[in-house]
Amino acid sequence: MSSRIREQLLSLLLHNTDSFISGEEISRRLQCSRAAVWKQIEELRKEGYQIEARPKKGYRLVHRPDRVAPEELKPHLSTRRFGRRILYRQSLPSTQPLAHDWARQGAEEGALIITEEQTQGRGRMGRVWHSPPHSGIWMSLILRPPVPLAQAPQLTLLASVGLTRALRRETGLDIQIKWPNDLLIGRKKFCGILTETRGEQDRVQYVVLGTGINVNVSGTHWPDELKDTATSLMIEGKRSYRRADLIAAILKELEELYDGYLSHGFEPIRILWEEYAGMLGRNVRTLTPRGPVEGTAVGLDGSGALLLRQGEEVIPVFSADIDY
Amino acid sequence: MSSRIREQLLSLLLHNTDSFISGEEISRRLQCSRAAVWKQIEELRKEGYQIEARPKKGYRLVHRPDRVAPEELKPHLSTRRFGRRILYRQSLPSTQPLAHDWARQGAEEGALIITEEQTQGRGRMGRVWHSPPHSGIWMSLILRPPVPLAQAPQLTLLASVGLTRALRRETGLDIQIKWPNDLLIGRKKFCGILTETRGEQDRVQYVVLGTGINVNVSGTHWPDELKDTATSLMIEGKRSYRRADLIAAILKELEELYDGYLSHGFEPIRILWEEYAGMLGRNVRTLTPRGPVEGTAVGLDGSGALLLRQGEEVIPVFSADIDY
Repeated sequence: MSSRIREQLLSLLLHNTDSFISGEEISRRLQCSRAAVWKQIEELRKEGYQIEARPKKGYRLVHRPDRVAPEELKPHLSTRRFGRRILYRQSLPSTQPLAHDWARQGAEEGALIITEEQTQGRGRMGRVWHSPPHSGIWMSLILRPPVPLAQAPQLTLLASVGLTRALRRETGLDIQIKWPNDLLIGRKKFCGILTETRGEQDRVQYVVLGTGINVNVSGTHWPDELKDTATSLMIEGKRSYRRADLIAAILKELEELYDGYLSHGFEPIRILWEEYAGMLGRNVRTLTPRGPVEGTAVGLDGSGALLLRQGEEVIPVFSADIDY
Repeated sequence: MSSRIREQLLSLLLHNTDSFISGEEISRRLQCSRAAVWKQIEELRKEGYQIEARPKKGYRLVHRPDRVAPEELKPHLSTRRFGRRILYRQSLPSTQPLAHDWARQGAEEGALIITEEQTQGRGRMGRVWHSPPHSGIWMSLILRPPVPLAQAPQLTLLASVGLTRALRRETGLDIQIKWPNDLLIGRKKFCGILTETRGEQDRVQYVVLGTGINVNVSGTHWPDELKDTATSLMIEGKRSYRRADLIAAILKELEELYDGYLSHGFEPIRILWEEYAGMLGRNVRTLTPRGPVEGTAVGLDGSGALLLRQGEEVIPVFSADIDY
């Protein structure tokens, strides 16, 4: 009850920042008591919202903290499904296991698990992914694509495209995709995508699409090796970004691409992907589970494998540690 | 401690059914006290083992109940990995979810989850699978094939072949495979296989291979519809079978086929599969998620999809409700 009131209250305040809105007006529109309004104003202030109160005039939102709580996200969402159900925590070991649990219990497609901080964030192959509080986007999205299990890896590529397009538009930065699941600015990584799939026989039951995006990470505490390979939107853009705005843009872009994927398949995604992949035409060295493979990156095949040209041959490469 | 003694005691008794073995001899070989031996004899008797005791001569196993507990399985296992770690329960809702939990916690390949009874046994697509106590084999095996996610469905076909070969040898019954995951005698189903896969990006993390086999199910309580479509080894063979012996044979066959699969790929499995598939050359009607498809079953393709010939065309079919 109180979270509904809080979401609606914040939405009202967010849409009325130019003028004051009276406690009576708020109470009428939210269909709750003045006391309830006052209580939620206080709760919001505790969360860092600066709300000016003037006698006879009412309330006005002066400053919003950068939070990813549902009341911050929902006013900006223009999606039909993605982000309509949100599970939010201040801190989690990691969003992925919770997303799996929720998916197994039947959470619908588009359900989002998001946290301010991960204490045990993980990338591919169990590698550590640092997820400090209030400075990045650490979230997992539940998808239920009615496709064969073999096509599940295409969701990673779709997500790479969606995140790239949304963040390019929002930040103006030159974001590029590095196969299989990284986003770079320059040659440094600021975002990773992790796709975990559950299948029955040859069908997908669900996909948990996880992403970690360094937004306002300053990197000052990073060890030198990390400073050579990692970055953030703030470092590259020399400003901070409001994460809720980025998330709304990301979810909108992902939902559009995903609906297109379900209708038209992977080919349109593949074409977009090749546009944003900075590695095409370059020599790449990969260390695959089958051993080292080297060649010129020439594109993706229909299933999402990276194609490397070695002389006359073109070889598909699956998940690998790639180096170029 | 006591389960180790019990396993070794039972193994001793099982290998000495022609003569008596003295309490002193048992105590010496098991490196435990006479009192401990006596305690375990009593525990076994409570489980239904008939152990004759004669003064000055010792103990002799007269009758073993049909159980699938580790102490019954281990004396017969000749595998290297499969069944070496066993999680056994008298009753479970279902072996699959427990197997997933165990796999996620890192259980090694070949770990087996087995129960006397399932109260919520499930087949494909969540359909009910009846698993009454002490009359069938309800188990899940954890595998970690280092293969792309797209190949995970091949494990269902491998398991179909392994179960068919082992059970044909043990029972002499004419067992045939019905794609995608049933075993039949005549036209009636007595066994189902359920493969659930967890993948990260495009690799398999683990596969939980579940199977339900109607061994000594009498079927007298079945509704008429079930009597038309289902059967058991006991109904067809007109005798009861010791489930521990069947499990040992199944695990041995599965391990051999699986090792061969890891070394030589799917082709040898595919050839065997086509030998045992009773449907080849027949007209089949399938109801796939994409709609009804009909044609003559002509074999499997390299990925494990069923190939149906429609005139000049050959169409691959994935998971489907098949009817013929």
